[in-house]
Amino acid sequence: MPTVEERLEQLESRLQVAEDRLAIANLIASYGPAVDRRDGAATEALWSTEGTYVIGDEVVPFTGLADIVDRPGHLRYVTAGCSHFLSPARIEVTDDTAVAVNYSMVVMHEGERWVVDRLSANRWELVRTDGGWKVERRANRTITGVEEARALLA
Amino acid sequence: MPTVEERLEQLESRLQVAEDRLAIANLIASYGPAVDRRDGAATEALWSTEGTYVIGDEVVPFTGLADIVDRPGHLRYVTAGCSHFLSPARIEVTDDTAVAVNYSMVVMHEGERWVVDRLSANRWELVRTDGGWKVERRANRTITGVEEARALLA
Amino acid sequence: MPTVEERLEQLESRLQVAEDRLAIANLIASYGPAVDRRDGAATEALWSTEGTYVIGDEVVPFTGLADIVDRPGHLRYVTAGCSHFLSPARIEVTDDTAVAVNYSMVVMHEGERWVVDRLSANRWELVRTDGGWKVERRANRTITGVEEARALLA
Repeated sequence: MPTVEERLEQLESRLQVAEDRLAIANLIASYGPAVDRRDGAATEALWSTEGTYVIGDEVVPFTGLADIVDRPGHLRYVTAGCSHFLSPARIEVTDDTAVAVNYSMVVMHEGERWVVDRLSANRWELVRTDGGWKVERRANRTITGVEEARALLA
Repeated sequence: MPTVEERLEQLESRLQVAEDRLAIANLIASYGPAVDRRDGAATEALWSTEGTYVIGDEVVPFTGLADIVDRPGHLRYVTAGCSHFLSPARIEVTDDTAVAVNYSMVVMHEGERWVVDRLSANRWELVRTDGGWKVERRANRTITGVEEARALLA
Repeated sequence: MPTVEERLEQLESRLQVAEDRLAIANLIASYGPAVDRRDGAATEALWSTEGTYVIGDEVVPFTGLADIVDRPGHLRYVTAGCSHFLSPARIEVTDDTAVAVNYSMVVMHEGERWVVDRLSANRWELVRTDGGWKVERRANRTITGVEEARALLA
């Protein structure tokens, strides 16, 4: 029979994992609204200060994250009307780090309808910090049949 | 050292927040299946009895919610074959109220494929009731490059 | 006033339900990445050994699950570049079984963009096993205006 102390400890550690999963899902769900309203500060705040965003072959360092909402390609999306529409992520938590895998689409207004202008595979490497879970590295690659995109899904 | 009583209290309140987040995510995930099977009662039941659904500039009161599944535009979608496909929401819980932000698409069958006939930003204001979490106000605006849609994402 | 024992028991059973919901969401979020990287073993592992995948009118038994990633239609998707993009599921847990309902799209690269080549309604019947939550039966039907697809959303 476990003691009260043992049961409390187990509850605390199990609850921590559940909270971690919820916090990570929420962090990832914050990305689309942040970039689609062109909020550079909110976008940057999703990453740790050592974090990187690897878009295809380009490595965007933390200091470049706030500016991604000002890029010409992004402005074209926002002006047309767009959503960075993400799928629910598969999440694995290991103590103070986690890996999440999901898909993202850029859905853009065109004519009377909306089109999918970009579809990517995403691998998120996350880290627990004093300010909560943050992205340490996000790798994003467009899905065009190449192995490099499929490799992110492992 | 916290006492057993203090640890139990903290576990109970932390678990409550985790359950709240899960309940709200589940409520939002119930919307698409409810309207797409034209179940007016199930749709209405997602809102509080004082709730409203603000679609663009139109304010649908609680008493009008069940009927949205009978609207001509909605019947056209259902007849063609459609999904109200929602993204995972960013959720903030504050005691007995919560705010969730996400995207919704109407994906409709046309020819041999499916098209995105509608893309919207959504802001859900939720409230804890005796019957569980309910929608107090949902604001939905199509994403066509207008500021009013981006403003819902804050 | 509940005793410490009663409070511990209630916390344990409430936390179990929260963990169940998270585990089921994670299981479903694992499907797309598994099939899109053509990992038959990972796909099969989502199902219980008595599980079935009912695609339209075809019943795929457990022994046929690993092979779905080798089907000609699937290879065509993977070669072009595709995502099995799923929506967040509405989940109901009852002790050792659960039902989840959501949508799935196959988004495929074509020309300079991506198209929705398939949209389906999904009803997942899940079971708790010694190896965690598994799919006992997944029913998937394309959404083309037919009642059979709407019926899965109940």
